[in-house]
Amino acid sequence: MASFRKPIHIETVIEKIWKYRKSGENETVGLKDTLGRFLGEDIIATTDIPRFNKSPYDGFALRAIDIKEATSDNIVELMVIDCIGAGMISEKRVQPFEAIRIMTGAQLPDGCDAVMMLELVKEITKDGAVYIQVKKSLKQGENISFKGEDIVNGKKLLEAGIKVNPGIQSILATFGYSQVEVKRQPVIGVFATGSELLDVEDHLAPGKIRNSNSYMLCGQIERSGGKAIHYGLIPDSLEKVYHSINRAIEEVDILVTTGGVSVGDFDYMPIIYEKLHANVLCNKIAMRPGSVTTVAEVNGKLLFGLSGNPSACYVGFELFLRPLIRDMLGSKKPFAKKVKAVLGTDFPKVNPFTRFVRSKLYFQNTKLIVKPIGLDKSGVIYSLALADCLLVLPGGSRGFQAGMEVDVLLLEDQEGGEKY
Amino acid sequence: MASFRKPIHIETVIEKIWKYRKSGENETVGLKDTLGRFLGEDIIATTDIPRFNKSPYDGFALRAIDIKEATSDNIVELMVIDCIGAGMISEKRVQPFEAIRIMTGAQLPDGCDAVMMLELVKEITKDGAVYIQVKKSLKQGENISFKGEDIVNGKKLLEAGIKVNPGIQSILATFGYSQVEVKRQPVIGVFATGSELLDVEDHLAPGKIRNSNSYMLCGQIERSGGKAIHYGLIPDSLEKVYHSINRAIEEVDILVTTGGVSVGDFDYMPIIYEKLHANVLCNKIAMRPGSVTTVAEVNGKLLFGLSGNPSACYVGFELFLRPLIRDMLGSKKPFAKKVKAVLGTDFPKVNPFTRFVRSKLYFQNTKLIVKPIGLDKSGVIYSLALADCLLVLPGGSRGFQAGMEVDVLLLEDQEGGEKY
Repeated sequence: MASFRKPIHIETVIEKIWKYRKSGENETVGLKDTLGRFLGEDIIATTDIPRFNKSPYDGFALRAIDIKEATSDNIVELMVIDCIGAGMISEKRVQPFEAIRIMTGAQLPDGCDAVMMLELVKEITKDGAVYIQVKKSLKQGENISFKGEDIVNGKKLLEAGIKVNPGIQSILATFGYSQVEVKRQPVIGVFATGSELLDVEDHLAPGKIRNSNSYMLCGQIERSGGKAIHYGLIPDSLEKVYHSINRAIEEVDILVTTGGVSVGDFDYMPIIYEKLHANVLCNKIAMRPGSVTTVAEVNGKLLFGLSGNPSACYVGFELFLRPLIRDMLGSKKPFAKKVKAVLGTDFPKVNPFTRFVRSKLYFQNTKLIVKPIGLDKSGVIYSLALADCLLVLPGGSRGFQAGMEVDVLLLEDQEGGEKY
Repeated sequence: MASFRKPIHIETVIEKIWKYRKSGENETVGLKDTLGRFLGEDIIATTDIPRFNKSPYDGFALRAIDIKEATSDNIVELMVIDCIGAGMISEKRVQPFEAIRIMTGAQLPDGCDAVMMLELVKEITKDGAVYIQVKKSLKQGENISFKGEDIVNGKKLLEAGIKVNPGIQSILATFGYSQVEVKRQPVIGVFATGSELLDVEDHLAPGKIRNSNSYMLCGQIERSGGKAIHYGLIPDSLEKVYHSINRAIEEVDILVTTGGVSVGDFDYMPIIYEKLHANVLCNKIAMRPGSVTTVAEVNGKLLFGLSGNPSACYVGFELFLRPLIRDMLGSKKPFAKKVKAVLGTDFPKVNPFTRFVRSKLYFQNTKLIVKPIGLDKSGVIYSLALADCLLVLPGGSRGFQAGMEVDVLLLEDQEGGEKY
């Protein structure tokens, strides 16, 4: 039967669940498999970059002093005594009025202190020797990429917990990280409960609907960087639910159920929590949608009972599960990134609780505009497909007008935030 | 030897390569494997949503007419004649002053036209029968989710070419798409050329550097939605390069080389293009970095010769390869999303060509600010790791000042743009 539930604040929920967070373990993967993973170790420069003074252009390495008077009216000729490609080292040392042909990326030969670009000289042959005609001067050090000017050996480049992008893969390769310590992906199990649910393959029957939340949740888990175990559908049979959940807890870092958490007569979840000797941390949260979210703890593992309503389920995941997953992945910014935007339409609906509205961000000139997608009515799953952010509207007694400045949580952002 | 190269505009390059784009093929994957894939078919609603009039709350289905006079001073009693959970159908039909206990999501019983929330009534038992005491009225249709109010059967919900996110997975599940047509991932092969290059595992040697571009490119290919084949390193030996490239062309949709495309003496790529009877579409582009990008076509397949300079390689990929990949994935917005931002620092450097500066976007209140990361000097790979956008500075004879409005191409965006 219906029991009283006291709504608690989102911040309080975060505090409660944060006590049971676990630091993630590391595993080693090959460099090619690091995209989208989270670094398990700080990445340290193992050499200077550039590793040596080098030429950024194809041209001629020379001594600036030899050409300091060179102009188009006073052409200076230098004898070309060697030619080196990238990866090659010249054995020779330039003497006055000598130059070495050098390719992009090659190490600057001893004695040279500037590089003249290929296009700016004329090559001629005299007595079997090659000369260049130079008609402009260079400063000492001009057109040289200096050893260590980009990165100094030993510098900490990247912190553990950062998500790997292609540019980071480039850094890992440059410093010889052929095997990389990354965070193990937290394993999150997902159950859909509810006797009204059919499997995706099933034919429709009167009064029944297809299970969609568990597929959505698995997608959200993957997007957050976790690994999902899709346990699928459990009918609302007390014994079956209990045994399945009890077994699943052993296999996962966090367990999520969707459905069966409202105050309906056919909701077995409160009984299940009792049978599991679960420590219920909250069973109602001061938010819309998603107020009937339950969070419990069994032997140090968290169990989330998300609403069966798709929007509530979606929002509950993003607000509570995503930060836990990102935290296990070592992120220093496990929360959704919060930005300010201008509300693009009126939102007159009033609610005592903070409301999270599935919305879309627009870039209008240099301004960020946010607009809710469709209705925010329970069950409108269509809007979930198009949302790229959650508009945060504080609870209170007034509505919101277009033009107001509002908070927005980004859903597809890669960087994260330090708190809500 | 150095040959003259005429720089052509980015738009012209796009036009030229667009002639050789290929529409991607479809393949079928299970619903659980669709995250991040691109839809190969339009997704059509196969039922109304909700499928039937249903209760959005736990409560009592009743006839609004019976309680139209109900107030706290005029309590109306209704007899509860049945109790249905979600997925159940009531066999009974309510008569005047009767109600049916109904759980969230259950189909509204025949004869009922409103739902009273559980919390608002008192249940009593009289003579073995259960009654509820109602002390407020409801409008006809109040607290009912109506058949088709969210989505009407037959509606086109999503277009082919859209990237699948968790909300879309929810839609696919709802409408029974257990197997989904998605676009086959274009296969892009990557070669790193350059005799200065060592493998990531190799010990460093004088004048040599580690290959990093090919790992970065594979990451960029994956981020774009393609499948990378990492062919690794080829020394600058003419025969080896030719044979490897010739063989690889057969295995891929697009082939990319990095390095060996400048005008240096040790650059074999132009000879390779000749041996392959390649139709060179361009060998210099009016942009910085990346001007030495070469694009050729062999038997209808595109070969990209990107610069060996990491920044140039990175930018060349994002500007030309990414749109081709996204186009093969069916995206109607294959280009990087372009937004306006306020330049956060001066950028005095002048360039005749359009410059793409690796930068980071900041959200300051509701404003978008863009700041270049570090120096934009060739070889600064560190900035690639932190960049989330490319600042676009048009070529010309003047620099740029903080506060100016500039174009920015987003690197991690999921949506894309219709053109640059």
